[in-house]
Amino acid sequence: MGIGEAIAMELASEGLNLVLVGRDSLKLESTSSEIRHRIGDRVSIRTIVIDFAKVGGEEIEKRIGEEIEGLDVGVLINNAGLAYPFARAMLRILKLNLAQMAPISSCMLKKKKGAIVNIGSGSSGAAVSSYPLYTIYAATKAYIELFSRCISLEYKQHGIDVQCQIPLLVATKMASIKRSSFFIPSPETYSKASLRAIGYEQISIPYWPHSLQCCLIRAVPDIVQDCCLLRYFLGMRKRGLKKQQQEQQQKK
Amino acid sequence: MGIGEAIAMELASEGLNLVLVGRDSLKLESTSSEIRHRIGDRVSIRTIVIDFAKVGGEEIEKRIGEEIEGLDVGVLINNAGLAYPFARAMLRILKLNLAQMAPISSCMLKKKKGAIVNIGSGSSGAAVSSYPLYTIYAATKAYIELFSRCISLEYKQHGIDVQCQIPLLVATKMASIKRSSFFIPSPETYSKASLRAIGYEQISIPYWPHSLQCCLIRAVPDIVQDCCLLRYFLGMRKRGLKKQQQEQQQKK
Repeated sequence: MGIGEAIAMELASEGLNLVLVGRDSLKLESTSSEIRHRIGDRVSIRTIVIDFAKVGGEEIEKRIGEEIEGLDVGVLINNAGLAYPFARAMLRILKLNLAQMAPISSCMLKKKKGAIVNIGSGSSGAAVSSYPLYTIYAATKAYIELFSRCISLEYKQHGIDVQCQIPLLVATKMASIKRSSFFIPSPETYSKASLRAIGYEQISIPYWPHSLQCCLIRAVPDIVQDCCLLRYFLGMRKRGLKKQQQEQQQKK
Repeated sequence: MGIGEAIAMELASEGLNLVLVGRDSLKLESTSSEIRHRIGDRVSIRTIVIDFAKVGGEEIEKRIGEEIEGLDVGVLINNAGLAYPFARAMLRILKLNLAQMAPISSCMLKKKKGAIVNIGSGSSGAAVSSYPLYTIYAATKAYIELFSRCISLEYKQHGIDVQCQIPLLVATKMASIKRSSFFIPSPETYSKASLRAIGYEQISIPYWPHSLQCCLIRAVPDIVQDCCLLRYFLGMRKRGLKKQQQEQQQKK
């Protein structure tokens, strides 16, 4: 389960109706039935299939706008995002992680109330000093953080609360972590903290052990952090490339 | 004159040959002849016409790569960028300010030496706390700053120095400022400081009165800055929209 899915489940269990947006109709369907299975028919779930990596900004605004016409959307969670399997640059991330942010947010402007939550990352400089080899991913998250800060000022006058939430490591498939621990919550635990934090600071680290972790990391000089992170990610890339090579050889 | 043009002039006056990249062939030509007029035939100038807002990342890498084949590029200045006339959101900025950054930088990787200078902005959070109504512009600059920090670590092992330079206000057409002052240098003055700074810190504020200004701004609490900036930019947008309306009425 990913962070987005867990947050959707948590919102539903609070009795909020859902509009799920994603690129994969099968996955959306399975998430919907999972939620219905757990929560029952208390909430209504609508799905919108749209691939942010393929569709332009104006079309996103138009399509989402049409689909949510007449609905009273209270909370928007901007969670769509992509990282890469092992520290390689991929330009597609740029488009996917950023291009939908502005048009979707502007759909909310017409409502004059509600909350927007953009999911950032500790890699944006919020926790660690840098994130080498995951450069474009981290840079898109830095974009999202400042984007949130700026539009929160602008949207406040229109009655909309904007927040950027910073998760550090969460035990998801994207982070390739299977087991949760004190510093690495499961998506379910994280999403509970995430919902509790909505409406408070502009930039928020919802899960408190993550805040603690941030303080500890900040005590380490940047130059030491840089060195360790580069070494760690270079190792990760090496292992990833080796694994990929082995898989290709097995296919032959 | 803009910052890019002034830096080109300054590099030429130091005796470096130039490759100018821009979308407007006439403007490139006039810049070239202006430089030749001032410097004489001491340096050779080549121009590449390419519109980063229209061309994809791979094509940029291929075209620039072919054009600079065999040249020993020492310093790359990534200065292409767009702001908007008066505080309106424009998604085109996202593509123009960011999409060329990675492919152009990777052209340098083959060289195994040299310097890359990416031009950031005080609006990225480096000087002011936020930049409301110029949200996408500021967020792209936050992207550029973290992008530079991350690839500087990665490229260092390949012998390439990466730096992000942060200008605050410079008396350019883009900033709509005609007269320079102590805190607002002319592009010529700024570009001299800019060249002197290459090769030092990863993130640099080359013009020292700008550094002083940053210290002064940082002494003001974020919440006060946010308030003042929002008010100032809302006023600017109001005046801009009024002017635009008047111009449209005159046309009728």
